[in-house]
Amino acid sequence: MQSPIEFSVIARDDGARAGRLVTGHGEVATPAFMPVGTRAAVKAMAPDELWDMGYRMVLANAYHLAIRPGAELVREMGGVASFMGYRGAVLTDSGGFQAMSLAQINSITDDGIRFRSHLDGSLLMLTPESAVEIQQHLGADIMMALDECTPYPCEHGRALKSLDLTARWAERSHAARISTTQALFGIVQGSVYPDLRKMSAAQITSIAFDGYAVGGLSVGEPKPAMLEMAALSVSMLPADKPRYLMGVGTPADLLAAIAMGFDMFDCVLPTRNARNGSAFTSEGRISIKQAVHARDGRPLDPACDCRPCRTHSRAYLRHLFMSGEILAARALTEHNLHFYANLMRGAQAAIASRTFAAYAKDVAAGWPVKEAAEGA
Amino acid sequence: MQSPIEFSVIARDDGARAGRLVTGHGEVATPAFMPVGTRAAVKAMAPDELWDMGYRMVLANAYHLAIRPGAELVREMGGVASFMGYRGAVLTDSGGFQAMSLAQINSITDDGIRFRSHLDGSLLMLTPESAVEIQQHLGADIMMALDECTPYPCEHGRALKSLDLTARWAERSHAARISTTQALFGIVQGSVYPDLRKMSAAQITSIAFDGYAVGGLSVGEPKPAMLEMAALSVSMLPADKPRYLMGVGTPADLLAAIAMGFDMFDCVLPTRNARNGSAFTSEGRISIKQAVHARDGRPLDPACDCRPCRTHSRAYLRHLFMSGEILAARALTEHNLHFYANLMRGAQAAIASRTFAAYAKDVAAGWPVKEAAEGA
Repeated sequence: MQSPIEFSVIARDDGARAGRLVTGHGEVATPAFMPVGTRAAVKAMAPDELWDMGYRMVLANAYHLAIRPGAELVREMGGVASFMGYRGAVLTDSGGFQAMSLAQINSITDDGIRFRSHLDGSLLMLTPESAVEIQQHLGADIMMALDECTPYPCEHGRALKSLDLTARWAERSHAARISTTQALFGIVQGSVYPDLRKMSAAQITSIAFDGYAVGGLSVGEPKPAMLEMAALSVSMLPADKPRYLMGVGTPADLLAAIAMGFDMFDCVLPTRNARNGSAFTSEGRISIKQAVHARDGRPLDPACDCRPCRTHSRAYLRHLFMSGEILAARALTEHNLHFYANLMRGAQAAIASRTFAAYAKDVAAGWPVKEAAEGA
Repeated sequence: MQSPIEFSVIARDDGARAGRLVTGHGEVATPAFMPVGTRAAVKAMAPDELWDMGYRMVLANAYHLAIRPGAELVREMGGVASFMGYRGAVLTDSGGFQAMSLAQINSITDDGIRFRSHLDGSLLMLTPESAVEIQQHLGADIMMALDECTPYPCEHGRALKSLDLTARWAERSHAARISTTQALFGIVQGSVYPDLRKMSAAQITSIAFDGYAVGGLSVGEPKPAMLEMAALSVSMLPADKPRYLMGVGTPADLLAAIAMGFDMFDCVLPTRNARNGSAFTSEGRISIKQAVHARDGRPLDPACDCRPCRTHSRAYLRHLFMSGEILAARALTEHNLHFYANLMRGAQAAIASRTFAAYAKDVAAGWPVKEAAEGA
């Protein structure tokens, strides 16, 4: 079967690469960050705002949407992008991670994950086949194979056993896909063990997925282990397919992962941090609740041209945050997503001009030592 | 002293009038509805969105802003409009209503209202003089004199006594105003008693305020009493000054009050109802949480051209609301404020073409019987 997506690398700079991903809902320039729209909405944002910031693909969550409003309903409404009123592409995760982490009771068997809905307690079963079926109903441009995401820490024996399951589920996911317009990605696991990461990459890349993801990272392991496993995993992925690092990360993490050759990212950091009053700026992170901002007439980031930075002072944003106003969440989310979008645009341009290393260094130089060290 | 605002009636149609109010922050077409931005933010909305919908004046609350972030801080930031990043005008209420209704402990003396802050319990005193001083610091284009808003029901003797206090406070408020760029309005009280409404109107209009408001309505009294008192009060206000009906109301209430000759309105209804899932439409009110909307691909109001109606289905909005997504509050608030802005634009045009009665009838004809009866 011909892949429902087209991916081409258009520039390389050492390990980093810039590309073009063509989906059923348009073209996405890579490296690409995908804002997280768990329930078919990126929290506090309107879909046209995401588009206007340059986002051409967002992530939605199959578990949440299957439980509410239901995958069939989303299908009736034309699929998740149409349901949201979003002009771009949508990637859905399989729901396995949420079935394990959010559901009230759950158990894993060879067949799949049995769990109770965190909303109404109803008993549900997620199998590799049903996860693909749900994502086909949701109309995702890119679907993810059901995997078991091991927690951290996880013993070697337990991680090895999980790897076998993930490999068998990957085969079944691939066999279950019917849609010819929706891509399916496999996921490499293996916890923090180099031998398991290699084994998993070999298993998963032996299946003809449309792209490959590296999962099971940013789940509590030390940052050096995360970066080591990401680098090892990506080195084993085919160069002609998109490579997606799941759930990562800080701006420094993204620059490091781009240097390794990853093309796609998602993370709740810019949106969740925003709702907690934390902003990413060219001068490092700012916590807007701090009293030092109370009478500060400057914008969040003097170097930023996003709408909130053009309109609002830190003093006003702090007042909104302290008062619990929705506009605080909106403004900080918009700013943070603008920061991430600019970071990706800058990376794409730097790779094209073969100046990525200097770009990454320049960007990090603006951040306080602590922030840079955190990502190093 | 010359009035800091200019008001001119540019068209009349029976009792209704269309006008032009020029403030220190630009021109406002009347009849005008002011969205309520209690804490210097209209909940869920960005200031440029209000401007783009056609709103040229919003209301902010002196009590809330004096407590947090403080009137002095707002003054340092250039006044409330500048603080908000709003290009239009701002009217502030005096804070008396909130000092009585929100504060933990309060007592009224001839001097003013003594109360404890609902935020930190600090003991504060609001006098006619300090209420004007606070509003001067806030930089409001229109300030309101401190009054006592009687609850409903309220005995005649109690209401009469309150009226005396309100009249004396009005004198002191007027004497306390120093600013030559900020207008000050007096407020007519009198509960549901015609004799007291007349007495209050005579007292308040004997003072050279820049405009006159009718207060103490929509506080629980029956709708016919509200409309009767509003009509009686407005008939005693000078024709050459703006007339403001405080805290009212539904679309039907607004049309009725415009017919009486009121020029300005504020109400939390479009914004608060939105956050509770209730939308005003050309076909009456819709509660988006109802199951009937679950698979409805139509917009909230097929006759509406607001951004949410152009972008989102009822099915999606219901999903957002049921999921507690901020975008639900945003979309419904934007829609409702768009509805109110259109209602006012329609009224202005109808008065100019001397077709206001037909306009009010046509608008109401779109609503279900229950809705129309409620406002009648």
